[in-house]
Parts: sequence; C-alpha cells; structure tokens
Amino acid sequence: MTDAPMTAPAATATAGEVISRYLTEQAGNFLRALPQAVGEAGARPGALPSLNSPAGSGGTLELLRAVRRIGGALHTFGAVFEPGWAHESRAELRWLLNLLAQEPAYQRRSARLLAAVDSLSGAAPGGAGGPGMLAGHQGAPKARALLDRQLTLARTRAHSTVLQELRSARLHALADRMTLLVGEAPLVESARGKAGEVLPPQAGAAFTALGAAVRALPLHRAATAYQGDALHRLGGAEPTGPALVPAQGRPADADSALAADDAPWHRVRILVKRARYALEVCGRPGDQLMEVDRVLDRHQDAADAAVTAATAARTPRITPATAYVLGVVHADQRLEVEAARFAFGSRWPELPLSPDGWDGPPGQRMG
Amino acid sequence: MTDAPMTAPAATATAGEVISRYLTEQAGNFLRALPQAVGEAGARPGALPSLNSPAGSGGTLELLRAVRRIGGALHTFGAVFEPGWAHESRAELRWLLNLLAQEPAYQRRSARLLAAVDSLSGAAPGGAGGPGMLAGHQGAPKARALLDRQLTLARTRAHSTVLQELRSARLHALADRMTLLVGEAPLVESARGKAGEVLPPQAGAAFTALGAAVRALPLHRAATAYQGDALHRLGGAEPTGPALVPAQGRPADADSALAADDAPWHRVRILVKRARYALEVCGRPGDQLMEVDRVLDRHQDAADAAVTAATAARTPRITPATAYVLGVVHADQRLEVEAARFAFGSRWPELPLSPDGWDGPPGQRMG
Repeated sequence: MTDAPMTAPAATATAGEVISRYLTEQAGNFLRALPQAVGEAGARPGALPSLNSPAGSGGTLELLRAVRRIGGALHTFGAVFEPGWAHESRAELRWLLNLLAQEPAYQRRSARLLAAVDSLSGAAPGGAGGPGMLAGHQGAPKARALLDRQLTLARTRAHSTVLQELRSARLHALADRMTLLVGEAPLVESARGKAGEVLPPQAGAAFTALGAAVRALPLHRAATAYQGDALHRLGGAEPTGPALVPAQGRPADADSALAADDAPWHRVRILVKRARYALEVCGRPGDQLMEVDRVLDRHQDAADAAVTAATAARTPRITPATAYVLGVVHADQRLEVEAARFAFGSRWPELPLSPDGWDGPPGQRMG
Repeated sequence: MTDAPMTAPAATATAGEVISRYLTEQAGNFLRALPQAVGEAGARPGALPSLNSPAGSGGTLELLRAVRRIGGALHTFGAVFEPGWAHESRAELRWLLNLLAQEPAYQRRSARLLAAVDSLSGAAPGGAGGPGMLAGHQGAPKARALLDRQLTLARTRAHSTVLQELRSARLHALADRMTLLVGEAPLVESARGKAGEVLPPQAGAAFTALGAAVRALPLHRAATAYQGDALHRLGGAEPTGPALVPAQGRPADADSALAADDAPWHRVRILVKRARYALEVCGRPGDQLMEVDRVLDRHQDAADAAVTAATAARTPRITPATAYVLGVVHADQRLEVEAARFAFGSRWPELPLSPDGWDGPPGQRMG
C-alpha cells in the first residue's frame, strides 16, 4: 500500500533519491507480501476453491499491487536505471503478474457471471429491483451451473500453476532482485540530476503515450449512450485499428473481432495504470486517474466474462434453453463493456491531467 | 394527412365549429383512404407477403392515421358529442385500428429483427461499422430464417383477417358513421360555447392524464444510461406498478414480468398521441410531442420484437446455436427498449407542454 502521502520531490533531491525511495517502499511491500501469498495459496484447497476463500485476498493482492508499481516505475523512468537490469526485471515482474493475476481474475469473472445470471433471472439475493428478463427461465439454473463448473475448473488449474511456481527458482531469483531494490536500485549517471528536472519529462512521456492511445479510441461514439458499439459495430469507428474484415471478403469470426475491438481499450487501461504510478513516484495525487482505471478494469472484466459466456455456449450437448440464456448473458456482458466505454468517454475529457506544481507538461492531451 | 396548418380557433368560432372542421377533414381522409386500403390488401398476395410489397403502404397508413385522430378527438373532446354515439364510434374505430395495425406491425418487426441479426452477425448491407458480436456465428443464418418464417406466417394470418373484415358489414357501418361525420358530427349543447373556452380545458385534461402517467414511470432511473432497467430490474423502480412477484414467493415468469414492465410505457405512448391530436384540433404545433411519440413507437416495436425473439427461442428442436443467437437478439432488443426509455427520459423534462396562445393551462406537468 502506498496510501501514505508521498511528499513532492524536494528541490534538492536527485532523481535517483526520489525513485529509490519509491522502489524501496514497493520492494518492501513485495517482500512482506510474498510469504503471505505463498501461505495463502498453500492453505487454499486447490481442488475446490470456493467463493468463500477468495483467491485474491490479503497477500496475493498486496503482491500484485507492488509488482504493478515496480514494473510501472521501471518502465516509465527506465532512463535512470541500468538498462539490462531494468529490462530483465520488468520481464520477470510481468511473468509474476500474469501468474498471480489469473486466479483472482477467474474469481471476479465467476462472481460477475453468476451475479448476472441471478440478476437476469430475478433470483438475486436481497431482492433489489424486480425480476429480470430471464425470470423463471428453465435454462437459467443450467447455464449458471455450467458457468460455475467451467470457471471453477479454470480457477483450479490457475491455482495449481501458482502453487507450483511459488516454489520455483525463478521466483526466488525475482525475490533476490527485489531485495537488491531495497535501497540499492542500479542507477545510471542521469539519476544524479535534480528530480524536478529529470523525472517530469519521463512521467510526461507516459501521459503522452496515454493521450495518443486514447486518441485512437472511438470516444466520439462512446460518449453517446446506446450506440451498440460493443455489440453491433466492432472496430467500425476506430480510425487506427486493424482491419477486421479479412481480404477474402468473409466477415471475421466473432472472437477475433471482439478481441480486436477491445484491444485498444485494454491498452489504454495499462497506460492509465502507468500514468497513475508515475504520479505516485512524483508524489502527485492521481485520484481521478484511479477512477478511470477502475472503469477500465470493469471494461476488461466484462469483456473477459463475455468471452467465457460465448465459450460456454459452444459446449457440446447443452440444451437450447441453456444456450439461449448464455446468449442473453453474453449480450449483457457486452452491454457492460459498452457502459464502461460510455463511463470512460464521459469522464476522460474532464480529467485534469496537469496537476499543479508539475514542472513539465504532464502530457499533451489530445483525446 | 393534416399537414395543412390549421388556424387557431378564431375568437368567434364555437367549439362545435372547430371540432367539426377537424373531424370533417379526418373523416374525408378516412373515406378517401378506405377503398385504397381495400384495394391494396386485395392486390397483395396474402400467402406470400414479401418485404417488397409493404403492408403499411399508402392507403392503409392513411387510414390508420385518420382512425387514430378521429378516435383521439372523440376521446379527448368527448363532452361536446352525443355520448352514446361517441362511445360506439370509438369502439368501432378501436376495432379497425387493431385490425389494420397488425400487418404493418409484423412487417416492421420482421424488418427490425432481421436487421438486428444482420447487424449483430456483421452481414449488414452497406457495411456501416464493423462486424458484430455474432460475426460468422453458425446460428445466425438459422435464427434469421426461423424469425423470418415465423413472422411471415403471423403476417400472412393478419393479412387474411384484414382481407376478410374489409368486406364485412361492420366496416360498412363504420364507413357510414364516418360519412355522417363529414359536416354533421352529433354534437350536444355545450358545443355551442366559444372554442377558446370549451376546448382548452378538455385538451388540458389530456395533458393532465399524460403528466400523471409519466409520473408513474421510473424516469429518474431511465434518465441515467446503462442501468439495465429493461433487462435486469423489471418493474423494480416503478412506484405504482403492479407487484411482479406472486404471493407464492416464486418469481414471476419473464413474459409477464416484461409485459408488466413495459405496460406503463405503452400507456404513455397512447396518451402522448392523444395529447398530440388534441393540439392538432386546437391548431397548435406539436412537433416536440411528435418526437417523443416516435421514441415511444420505437419502444413499443423493440418490446414486441423482444417477445418474438423469446418466443422463437422456445421453438422445439432448434439447435443450441440458434437458441444462443436468439438470446443475443432478445437481449439486444431489450437494450433498444432501454435506449428508448433513456431517450424519452432525456427529452421529457424539456418538453414545452404549454404552447403560446393556449388559453388554459395545457397540462399540469409533474413529470
């Protein structure tokens, strides 16, 4: 956690001092969370993970949080580090991130999809709102059970992989790297420059990249509700996106069309996180970026859940009623994707991406 | 058509003169359109109506237009007519309306649903936008053919009924009533009062009824996009709606839940039309009412199309792939329902329901 407010880089501090202080804190978080995450993973029955023993609790989430921040800082402020070391460290952190993020993601996806089925079929606990458009539908319990079964299986597999890798030499080597980071990040000459001169241009580059990626989004459409962008017009309004209709003239299959439609949004999500962490390094508040970050997390989760619903509908020998419910759930999750884009499109233009006291331009916003 | 601008009731005109002038014009439209509609119906091959011979063309649409306006005027300004005659006339006009409206409605529904499948599967002509979330899905052509077949059958049946009734004694009697209306509406004593004194309170009552019906809608939710109101929370936010969960504690089935959720909106649609026609009688512009009228027509069409998709999904022996596509289409049409509610919720508060020059308050708006 980096909730403790960081002070802005003092006029006298060097870039190396500022970035070292940040990495020391994050590496400390990493090293504290690691044994906790290992213990949690070992304590969870891998074969039958239930929603009551959340995979993403305590140590694992803390570890993910530190991994993201260290990786982000090494990327954004890469110029002050020994290049080979930074490159290798980022690769190893990315490996751990992908490894650890899966199980909590499957759990969120499971919670999201089962809640969607419950809400659509009017069986939501608490009884908020009335019944849904699938109220009393005979396919709803079957579709729910199918999704639950498939996601439990996926989560169990992810858990086994985590269990295996958490005892690997690769993880031990990464932990050694993090130990080195505490107080002793391998810096280069430019790190001796004043923090206020060296860091802002590098943070600014992160915002420039973010602005450019957002410019490639079909924001002018996303800002108007109910355009059907995530259901009907995949990639249609995106100026820089890849062509979605193959040369043969056949329409692309839905899976690749959806993936290509979501990709630029997923990329913006990563760039928003990097920009957030860059602000953290420089001791600047990033509350508003955190808000759009959450919106884009929701976008990613809904897009992933939609894929799961579509995949489940291809399970052999399911009943038409089950398939019908999965079709409704798939469309519902794509609607959530569209809603997240709308929320992003509404918030983005008002983001003050130039916090006070920032030395350089924090980013040429052209969204 | 009543496109010719009607002059506002002159200060000297009686209520009877104003309303008679309106009814004379509309009854004339009725009598001109009737033989045309009969001819069209007879000329269309009832067994194989195609989208190229629109059921709602020319005469039929003109006839529907006149029927709606005469019925509306008889309802709103009922106090100036001989009550028994007005009551009977309205019942017969309603009969003809229900009879004639079906075939064009099936045709619109067919066009809407096939366009939705085409757009979702990325096969839309013209290629606007990219592929949809069902691009290349093997169930799409099957679902399309199923919807086409079922709606063609329904349309054919409606057409046969129209053909049969258009030669009935009942229709001849109604035509006689309309002939009477040309210049000789059976008025009562109060029709001799000044138009500016008699008509506005009655038109005002139409607006009061509209305002009260709109107040019962969950507009505070509909005004925010992506609340899932037409998919997840049927009737949940409606203060005066009927209870949707039966006493046994079982959730209501989806069909009745959806119907109950849509009913107050359908009612508002009828009241908007009545208010529009009341303005026409008084020679006032009703452009903005026409706009929300169109939005509510879209709401009705999408709700009806959603029912058709859900019904088609219950066809025995369809493949899971077909059922899945119908689930997506069903959700997509409910999304259209929600979008129409959002459009209504955005426009309603800005409607100037007090046009200039109106004598009395045209309606206590409490929406």
